[in-house]
Amino acid sequence: MAQKRQIHFSAYLVGTGIHVASWRLPSAQRNASIDLEFYKKMAQTAERGKFDIAFIADSLAVNEDSHPNILNRFEPTTLLAALAGATSKIGLVATASTTYHEPYNLARLFASVDHISNGRAGWNMVTTGDATGETGRNFSRQSHVEHDERYKQAEEFIDVVQGLWDSWEDDAFVQDKESGVYFDPQKLHRLHYKGQYYSVQGPLNIGRSRQGQPVIVQAGASEPGQRLAARTAEVVFSHVKDFEKAKAFYKSLKGKLADFGRTPDQLHILQGISPIVADSKEEAEAINRQLHDLLLPEQGLRFLSGYLGKVDFSKYTLDTPAAEVEFPPDNGIQSHFERMTELIQKENPTLRELYALLEGGVNRELVGTPEQIADVLEKWFTEGAADGFMFVAPILPQGLEDFVDKVVPILQERGLYRLDYEGDTLRDHLGLRKPVNRFAANSQVLTNVEA
Amino acid sequence: MAQKRQIHFSAYLVGTGIHVASWRLPSAQRNASIDLEFYKKMAQTAERGKFDIAFIADSLAVNEDSHPNILNRFEPTTLLAALAGATSKIGLVATASTTYHEPYNLARLFASVDHISNGRAGWNMVTTGDATGETGRNFSRQSHVEHDERYKQAEEFIDVVQGLWDSWEDDAFVQDKESGVYFDPQKLHRLHYKGQYYSVQGPLNIGRSRQGQPVIVQAGASEPGQRLAARTAEVVFSHVKDFEKAKAFYKSLKGKLADFGRTPDQLHILQGISPIVADSKEEAEAINRQLHDLLLPEQGLRFLSGYLGKVDFSKYTLDTPAAEVEFPPDNGIQSHFERMTELIQKENPTLRELYALLEGGVNRELVGTPEQIADVLEKWFTEGAADGFMFVAPILPQGLEDFVDKVVPILQERGLYRLDYEGDTLRDHLGLRKPVNRFAANSQVLTNVEA
Repeated sequence: MAQKRQIHFSAYLVGTGIHVASWRLPSAQRNASIDLEFYKKMAQTAERGKFDIAFIADSLAVNEDSHPNILNRFEPTTLLAALAGATSKIGLVATASTTYHEPYNLARLFASVDHISNGRAGWNMVTTGDATGETGRNFSRQSHVEHDERYKQAEEFIDVVQGLWDSWEDDAFVQDKESGVYFDPQKLHRLHYKGQYYSVQGPLNIGRSRQGQPVIVQAGASEPGQRLAARTAEVVFSHVKDFEKAKAFYKSLKGKLADFGRTPDQLHILQGISPIVADSKEEAEAINRQLHDLLLPEQGLRFLSGYLGKVDFSKYTLDTPAAEVEFPPDNGIQSHFERMTELIQKENPTLRELYALLEGGVNRELVGTPEQIADVLEKWFTEGAADGFMFVAPILPQGLEDFVDKVVPILQERGLYRLDYEGDTLRDHLGLRKPVNRFAANSQVLTNVEA
Repeated sequence: MAQKRQIHFSAYLVGTGIHVASWRLPSAQRNASIDLEFYKKMAQTAERGKFDIAFIADSLAVNEDSHPNILNRFEPTTLLAALAGATSKIGLVATASTTYHEPYNLARLFASVDHISNGRAGWNMVTTGDATGETGRNFSRQSHVEHDERYKQAEEFIDVVQGLWDSWEDDAFVQDKESGVYFDPQKLHRLHYKGQYYSVQGPLNIGRSRQGQPVIVQAGASEPGQRLAARTAEVVFSHVKDFEKAKAFYKSLKGKLADFGRTPDQLHILQGISPIVADSKEEAEAINRQLHDLLLPEQGLRFLSGYLGKVDFSKYTLDTPAAEVEFPPDNGIQSHFERMTELIQKENPTLRELYALLEGGVNRELVGTPEQIADVLEKWFTEGAADGFMFVAPILPQGLEDFVDKVVPILQERGLYRLDYEGDTLRDHLGLRKPVNRFAANSQVLTNVEA
């Protein structure tokens, strides 16, 4: 990649926004979470902002304490297929779990979206934390798979999926009408995978897309998560809020790539940001205060307990110091739990303050003017804390529109961000090569030449 | 339903058509099976013809002997989501297996397509025959589930899926910005299903669509298949070629509905037809001959063995009488096997003749002029053999275009077929009521009133 390094952006699309009270704003659209036109417009806005990715998160269980925007939502792969027709350049990435899908089915879903979008699909593979056991109970399982076990299973899962995606070489379908030969049997490959968790024969009933295979995205911050990312991921979403820690994570993860014969530019680290941008710092602060005032503290806490394990908050008042709360043994999302523990030690918040601090949906240091936001992003990008950002807007669609209209032009002027797309596939946007088919006769040679 | 009874049509969309040699025609489009624009145009043609349904079949394993049009194909639910944006009225139905999916995932996929299409989705539930064991080997299974066991499991599966679809009452999401109440907890319902095969708690993370729930479609002709259809199906695809047998099947299946408290108009029986229509009988015959001449007999036989179990055809010549062939014990598609056995007894074909007779992709009695085709359909419809037809075109898109342009107007003139859609949802087209939510306080009363 001789090209100048540029910031990459992903837009996290979720109803009225990630702030748990965003739906209460006067401007918030009712039913946003299940309105296809609403999602189409957001994807188009992100595409207008030349984002690499429109991103759809997912979960496999909801309850009374879930974020309002995830109670009534589209299934992500079908949503991506629908968004493909409303966009032409932006990458389309969704979350799907390795613990609750069959690899053959999942390989098909994402390969199909990759064809439907003409080479713009990506899969955010997650192993699915399930602190409350609720997900397992939606899938006829008595208990949830343990954290490290999930990652071992995930390694097999991804090997099966990527192997299935190479079932057919790119020129397998000769379709010779004269002779009646539809495909070259030498270019059809069965996987014959036999592992501890999966045995999958293949072939898959869909060929490779214009970009070869969907892009692999991950978010795991734990040690097994980082190992899996270094081995397989092409984009990593991280949620480290502290600049020095983000630098350390960036260096650590990029440093692990060589163990798997990979170079640092083969994996992009995008840090999650939830800014509030306005023409003045005061205006941005006012929006943040409005959101904060709309938040019912009890709701914030109940929402937290969905992430962090079932906490019996009824034993406490809102003024109880969070340090006195008994949290259950962690089988949830490890990075969330660690961040909370640290915040409690450092800032000693009350329960009333905890949600806003931890998961309020807004980065306090990113409430400001377009220039202030751009300065922070430039620093993180140029000083080795991020290759780009997962933009998790507190308020949608407003936050995304403001960011695209006000922050993006500044980054473009500074030469940090593309003026337009230079290719058509997600791999093009990310500067990733089309992967060589592992079964092709000359794949080994090609790999050596290109490495 | 005081309305006049009208024919219902479903268009089976599969690449260049169901005839195994259709891709070899000079007019056949390369890569049709994986070209989204090709599928969009076909769905639009069927919509122009006021069809009830655009239908996508599926399978979960392919091999060297598979139909060319299913080797490289879209995953059906993502394809439906993409087709939803290219159409506005036609119902969108796809096949998915109860044996190889988790009910929670499948319930989401079809509910999501139902929202994306604004109430036009249907699910063709199949239990997946697997004569060769290949499907199981794509899903980490040692052996395939037996026929009757599959149907028991399917009964539980459909109960779970339909139960999950009712997780939220239609007015559950009150979204009261003032009070901060997003939903009415009285209108959120957990399923708490506990069966022999599945234990699923719920709720689903998506609400009901404009038509309430996706339409349930089935195709099973076996005794357990008919029982399941009588209990649950709203559309049944049948493939009986003989008029008297089709009448008997129609009467038998409709007669079973009362056992489940249902009325005959709550289930539509569509008979599969594969006509070749042309301006003259001679022209239609010529097209049929052209297809027949393009068929390599060995390919036809290999294709058969994919359906009927792995037969070692190398032991025979093309001139061997089919009656001498040893077929393996049947765990495939029962109706296909029975039809073959019967044909062999009745017509004593050679192996060369067997494929064309059995699965040639053309109904011999439906090769003719638009009037001749219309006459046959009218007879089947008015004399109690069908409520409509699954149009499985030998050649696509040509066969569908010809049918829409030439046969449909005749049926409209005869008052047998709608001049235009009268509603917007698939249930509207089929004259099916929006199902009452089973958990709603007044659902029992309503059910009694309407029954």
